[in-house]
Amino acid sequence: MTSTVSTDKVRAFESIRHFDISTEVLVCGYGGAGAAAALEAATLGAQVTILERASAGGGSTALSSCEMYLGGSGGTALQQALGLTDSTENMLAYLREALGPYGDEDKIQCYAHGAAAHFDWVESLGVPYKRAAFLERTVVPLSDESLLFTGNEKAHPFNSVATPVPRGHVPSKVGDEGGKIFMDAIMQRIAAKGAEVINDCRAIALIVDKNNRVCGVIAKRDNREIAIRAHRGVIITTGGFVMNDTMTRQYMPELREYCMPYGNTFDLGDGIQLGQAVGGQTINMEQAFMSFPLYPPAKLTYGILLNKYGQRYINEDAYLARLAHYSCQQAEQKFYLLVQEEDYEASHYLQRAAIIATGDSIAEVASEAPFPAGMLEQTVCYFNQHAIDKHDPLFHKSAEWLKPLTKPPFALLEYSAREMGAIITPGTKGPLIFTLGGLKTRTTGEVINLNEQVISGLYAAGRATAGLPRTAKGYASGMSVGDATFFGRLAGRSAAQHQPL
Amino acid sequence: MTSTVSTDKVRAFESIRHFDISTEVLVCGYGGAGAAAALEAATLGAQVTILERASAGGGSTALSSCEMYLGGSGGTALQQALGLTDSTENMLAYLREALGPYGDEDKIQCYAHGAAAHFDWVESLGVPYKRAAFLERTVVPLSDESLLFTGNEKAHPFNSVATPVPRGHVPSKVGDEGGKIFMDAIMQRIAAKGAEVINDCRAIALIVDKNNRVCGVIAKRDNREIAIRAHRGVIITTGGFVMNDTMTRQYMPELREYCMPYGNTFDLGDGIQLGQAVGGQTINMEQAFMSFPLYPPAKLTYGILLNKYGQRYINEDAYLARLAHYSCQQAEQKFYLLVQEEDYEASHYLQRAAIIATGDSIAEVASEAPFPAGMLEQTVCYFNQHAIDKHDPLFHKSAEWLKPLTKPPFALLEYSAREMGAIITPGTKGPLIFTLGGLKTRTTGEVINLNEQVISGLYAAGRATAGLPRTAKGYASGMSVGDATFFGRLAGRSAAQHQPL
Repeated sequence: MTSTVSTDKVRAFESIRHFDISTEVLVCGYGGAGAAAALEAATLGAQVTILERASAGGGSTALSSCEMYLGGSGGTALQQALGLTDSTENMLAYLREALGPYGDEDKIQCYAHGAAAHFDWVESLGVPYKRAAFLERTVVPLSDESLLFTGNEKAHPFNSVATPVPRGHVPSKVGDEGGKIFMDAIMQRIAAKGAEVINDCRAIALIVDKNNRVCGVIAKRDNREIAIRAHRGVIITTGGFVMNDTMTRQYMPELREYCMPYGNTFDLGDGIQLGQAVGGQTINMEQAFMSFPLYPPAKLTYGILLNKYGQRYINEDAYLARLAHYSCQQAEQKFYLLVQEEDYEASHYLQRAAIIATGDSIAEVASEAPFPAGMLEQTVCYFNQHAIDKHDPLFHKSAEWLKPLTKPPFALLEYSAREMGAIITPGTKGPLIFTLGGLKTRTTGEVINLNEQVISGLYAAGRATAGLPRTAKGYASGMSVGDATFFGRLAGRSAAQHQPL
Repeated sequence: MTSTVSTDKVRAFESIRHFDISTEVLVCGYGGAGAAAALEAATLGAQVTILERASAGGGSTALSSCEMYLGGSGGTALQQALGLTDSTENMLAYLREALGPYGDEDKIQCYAHGAAAHFDWVESLGVPYKRAAFLERTVVPLSDESLLFTGNEKAHPFNSVATPVPRGHVPSKVGDEGGKIFMDAIMQRIAAKGAEVINDCRAIALIVDKNNRVCGVIAKRDNREIAIRAHRGVIITTGGFVMNDTMTRQYMPELREYCMPYGNTFDLGDGIQLGQAVGGQTINMEQAFMSFPLYPPAKLTYGILLNKYGQRYINEDAYLARLAHYSCQQAEQKFYLLVQEEDYEASHYLQRAAIIATGDSIAEVASEAPFPAGMLEQTVCYFNQHAIDKHDPLFHKSAEWLKPLTKPPFALLEYSAREMGAIITPGTKGPLIFTLGGLKTRTTGEVINLNEQVISGLYAAGRATAGLPRTAKGYASGMSVGDATFFGRLAGRSAAQHQPL
């Protein structure tokens, strides 16, 4: 039934002479998913040890705004306080449209049913949420409101399958430090539960017994290998693999040509590889979150996006990941925005895009533009003809963002992928990406092997797994931290309740 | 260094009490790749045993036209006999453009340098190739010529990076039975070498010794498990996984929604799973060959392809897989062909497409068409304006296929993916696909594990591997059988020369 496989990422339990540390639940990776798992396991009474490769916990979650995509069950406490309702069915309809065939229906169901309660849990940690919404089109509010639209809710085709409700929940704070606020709060709770945190320490191999149960790890600490026994389970929450050049080359050869990794230094996929080494399946490995933050300013949305042929290709009011997905599908990943001066202002999150053509008429812009002759005039003429009636027969941009481009001067901005630079990561070129593939898990966090069976004693959550978010096309801000903390908790619960060795 | 992994697809050598069969090189799967591997190994003097799950050899290769994509080295014997030259650099330039970031440079180099000699080898088997070319735009010649264009050689952007040369080599026969001719010829040679063929028998597990060397298989035959020892090596040539619904759901959730599996019944991915069970890496799993055989008749190429917005999206003279790739990127996988009556004839390989609009003017067609009002008129006007000068500023369709659409009556055909039916597979709906992902191998056929090391004693070729062809976008007919037989031979050579146990 079993045999040997050549890898130094797996060690036989029987070969370990001495365990340096013994615990019940061992969490590898102290970001959002790991913290949620650790706190949940500790709350259930399990002895918890956490390994973190960096010198402090936080992970990519701490670097993020800590937006969580939450709703359903009639509305979260925050939604309801603002007079908003959000049924679970409405949230399900949205998520199914967003994830399409990539979605994991079990995870979607589990998440949509539990998301409102998850908000209560986050708030119970002491994370502040102000009962106020910021409803302008933006990425994250820089004032202190806690609720916003973070996906495609108000855009075609989503607005025709689900009632738009803002679901982005972000800690209240002036500025963009939600991730630090959340991680500080949860790490304090974890410390209070007496969990042991070992920084500058990473798992390099899983220990497996003769019954194929994962029962510990070999970790590297102070340049020395230590053996850690985990009587109930090991939880992998080590993040995605966007910083691992070999893996991105392997799994997303095309994206990596013109996109930029976005995450923390240690998003190296090492936990995914540990899971694989004991037979864990990886799925969705070619998919990534992608970002084209054209907005804010929201008013740029009045412009029209064009490919190198001068054709429109998307409703410009889509969410930044959907904009990136469709923009990068265009030839040579080149795309342009035509905008009136009154709507122009540099994108807040992008390095200033080149203005490659200007004019007092569309024809004048066209004469300086790189499009095939006549195409710009034709495209604008068609757009204007219908925009005046608040109608977009091609891509159904919502009426809110439709107005004819008739007020000169006009500018044509080049945002092509290879030229696009993000302000938050100076010196970079290309849309920011992070990975959405990883270990295949059940909603319980149990890792699934190549035979579709559970690997006993092994759990995973966060971007080390293929979780709730699966594709840029339907991504919404908050899906990743929401998923990581939500399913992190479930993984922690499963491990804490696993029959001890 | 090693430990146990839970899978019934791996057995410990030490646990096998009796071997029912002992051989030197064991080939699992008797299609094109397996036959090439077996013959090469046998020719080098190895004792060879072949397992085939079906009741006879042949695999998907036997069902194919047996086109092989060959050239370089100044030209194959067939190209040269027709006065054509084809340098290795020219072939390399083409392949690199075709495969882009997905390409494996080692395999591309190896293949481009060896392809002309590979033709000599195929011909030496007694496979007939007539010194005649069929240069019309088609899929496979139904007359007896042996050379044709099978890719995007004459289309933009390929025609700007490499000199177009026909590289599709197909056995000479009236009709489309090249695969049977090839397989009959090679199987006869293999029989003459004394290789043992066991039909109705499939490998269900790999046997691995304590040094992690693959040294045999457990096979199922007559509903009984038998153990087969392979002293030099096991070669996996079991085909792709397009017939495995679980795997396509996992790795290509979107494609499987609107595409149809194309292959033999046993393209079930079982060999890929065996490789994975001993730690073999799988790559390129989300990629597939896709087919939109709009042509023949070639004259449909004069028409223009439109998406649901009435926009053109590709040069219509592209190869059928590239047409499928870009067509299926369009919204809702809906696409249409506008054609003049003089160029109309039903596609030979597709069930008759619905004519959804007709007219004596473009405006009349538009009035019956599903496009947003005014778009068809605008698109056709722009196309015509430039086509009259043999110019396509948008997609650079070659001059050969450019003429203005000005001669009524006109017809609009709907070819949308979900409605498309292939004549060769009655009752099906959707573009035909087969998988282009599988085990990661070196050019030698050695299978690479998760640590980027060779798995001793394990080889693979054909669609069980990620081989030369990697994407529909740059596919050319003949890349798969060419790859399978070319790298099949190299795998056979490696196994035959592997130090015996």
